[in-house]
Amino acid sequence: MKTILFYFSLIFLSLAFLHAADKPFVLIAYYSPGGHTKALAQAVLEGAESVEGVTVKLLEIKDVKQEDIVAADALIVGSPVYNANIAPAVQRFINSWPFKDQPMKDKIGAAFVTAGGISAGEELVQMNILHSMLIYGMIVAGGPEWKSAFGASAVTEEEPFNEIKGKGKINSHFKEKGKALGKRVAELTLKIR
Amino acid sequence: MKTILFYFSLIFLSLAFLHAADKPFVLIAYYSPGGHTKALAQAVLEGAESVEGVTVKLLEIKDVKQEDIVAADALIVGSPVYNANIAPAVQRFINSWPFKDQPMKDKIGAAFVTAGGISAGEELVQMNILHSMLIYGMIVAGGPEWKSAFGASAVTEEEPFNEIKGKGKINSHFKEKGKALGKRVAELTLKIR
Amino acid sequence: MKTILFYFSLIFLSLAFLHAADKPFVLIAYYSPGGHTKALAQAVLEGAESVEGVTVKLLEIKDVKQEDIVAADALIVGSPVYNANIAPAVQRFINSWPFKDQPMKDKIGAAFVTAGGISAGEELVQMNILHSMLIYGMIVAGGPEWKSAFGASAVTEEEPFNEIKGKGKINSHFKEKGKALGKRVAELTLKIR
Amino acid sequence: MKTILFYFSLIFLSLAFLHAADKPFVLIAYYSPGGHTKALAQAVLEGAESVEGVTVKLLEIKDVKQEDIVAADALIVGSPVYNANIAPAVQRFINSWPFKDQPMKDKIGAAFVTAGGISAGEELVQMNILHSMLIYGMIVAGGPEWKSAFGASAVTEEEPFNEIKGKGKINSHFKEKGKALGKRVAELTLKIR
Repeated sequence: MKTILFYFSLIFLSLAFLHAADKPFVLIAYYSPGGHTKALAQAVLEGAESVEGVTVKLLEIKDVKQEDIVAADALIVGSPVYNANIAPAVQRFINSWPFKDQPMKDKIGAAFVTAGGISAGEELVQMNILHSMLIYGMIVAGGPEWKSAFGASAVTEEEPFNEIKGKGKINSHFKEKGKALGKRVAELTLKIR
Repeated sequence: MKTILFYFSLIFLSLAFLHAADKPFVLIAYYSPGGHTKALAQAVLEGAESVEGVTVKLLEIKDVKQEDIVAADALIVGSPVYNANIAPAVQRFINSWPFKDQPMKDKIGAAFVTAGGISAGEELVQMNILHSMLIYGMIVAGGPEWKSAFGASAVTEEEPFNEIKGKGKINSHFKEKGKALGKRVAELTLKIR
Repeated sequence: MKTILFYFSLIFLSLAFLHAADKPFVLIAYYSPGGHTKALAQAVLEGAESVEGVTVKLLEIKDVKQEDIVAADALIVGSPVYNANIAPAVQRFINSWPFKDQPMKDKIGAAFVTAGGISAGEELVQMNILHSMLIYGMIVAGGPEWKSAFGASAVTEEEPFNEIKGKGKINSHFKEKGKALGKRVAELTLKIR
Repeated sequence: MKTILFYFSLIFLSLAFLHAADKPFVLIAYYSPGGHTKALAQAVLEGAESVEGVTVKLLEIKDVKQEDIVAADALIVGSPVYNANIAPAVQRFINSWPFKDQPMKDKIGAAFVTAGGISAGEELVQMNILHSMLIYGMIVAGGPEWKSAFGASAVTEEEPFNEIKGKGKINSHFKEKGKALGKRVAELTLKIR
């Protein structure tokens, strides 16, 4: 009897594992020394996790392993905006992805950023991240509607969005954009893979 | 006997029709007062047609009907570069696409351009086209490798690429990029739809 | 006696004319079917006029003459954002500027735009205008501080900026950015010419 | 007699020093682990030095001191293109410039880059550098004509430009663009300061 149960468990676990392995995998990777980008990343996570049938993982870029990148069906990368460009640490992270023989080809790519001001680099940096993804042969997407066409962005130091103070606080308006991006990319991944 | 043949033909035609309707549809739309962009468009067509199982249509933007746009699974848009921006006629064409209720959402988008000089607007205009596509909720892709990451482009008035003279002549180097883009988008469309 | 007065007047008028002709000339040209861009243009005008010693002219693009463009020491161009790109009418206007022998070289260029949403094309279109200006050999500048680094922009259809309803109404927050841009460009023109 | 000569020399040296200090100062700063960007930087230097009345300095970014940046009337920054973005080291360099109270305001900015392929990021990275410069309040310019509108760029790994092999070798075609950029920025600096 015990032997039978053991084998049943084994079969069950194998199936569960295969099922998990078979699920489309969305990796959210961010860099957030100031906490704002982390807050937006968590909104992206929440949105992605609301989609059934997808495995989602949220990691700081320093904790992302090469196998995570290779295993991912979709990569959503988040960076603060520094002088209208990507944070150097995020660019280094992107530059570390495997290039030879195009292992990134046809993966889905998306971006989110946090910036001080309105029209102070958010669009440009979302696009900068997508530019690199295109070089890797990825296909790229933004949020589900025109107000988040290039991904998701949050403004943190310009009125009226600077009212919420404190490390890791962003206006709920932008959290909604983050959620919408996560949900959209997860749905796309499910549809495409 | 004739009746049977007739019905057989009917069934056969219906199946053929359904099959065609069911095929992923790639629309290539271009504007080319000078002929160069048309030459690149034809290379894109050749590449797309090399992929089996895909319906491909090449049209000047003035001949594109709203139903073509709605029916397309992928849209590849070509424009000459005017002062590092899209030709106004092409922008008007893009602005005419249906927006309400997002009929363009999740269609694949790609771009190709022709310009006078190296680094004189080709990348920017390929990206400008992709920017508009992202606003429509499309997912965007470039060529199959990093040298054509943003689509396909041809240089026509800078050495050594200005050697081939005449309306509609572009260097074969760039034709290869066009073909590669067409093939890649057709393959993606087949895979994704 | 009358003759003397007449000649004095003549001399005086000539001097006044020469003085005016000698003043740096800032041309603000905009396109605004919806009224928002006009409102921002008027703020830019107000800012530019606050600088003494500069001649400022505000014109709809359809009323701009070739001699205005050639005479201008600085050009500030305003466009609504259509699908994350310049309005085709504005691009046509820019494409009509004189190119041969570089009459635009070293003129100062700047841009302002109005868009529906935050991060929905404002930065990209400000930059698109500046890209064309760079092709003409102009030198380009933005507003006086990082929050308006690429010129000036106004958001009109996203919370909380959509509260002010009606043709030609934009949030005062963005009017300040417009004024700041006009003032900065006028000061630069005075300094540089 | 000797005393008189000594004092004359002193006066002469002081004047020379004052004169030098008074000369517009163009700083060229580059990063070039592969040698190509250094080769283009040297062409930019040659062009800038061909203009009389300007002090020009060429430095690797690691050797640039804060006082060089503050003293410069014009900054020309060179970077290799990595995945269609600035090299992280160059972005860190730019991020280190003084920001508070806008000491960079109204300085002239320009960019040059080297990349593997045609339309593989050169325009985008030239613009990325200019974007950061605009955030600092700088006024930006490109080369003297439309073929180098965004600065100067060199292609090193795509036919026919990959023929010249070896560390620090770039096609003479692109060296001319580098020279033209250096000359133009030096002339502008002389004119504007």
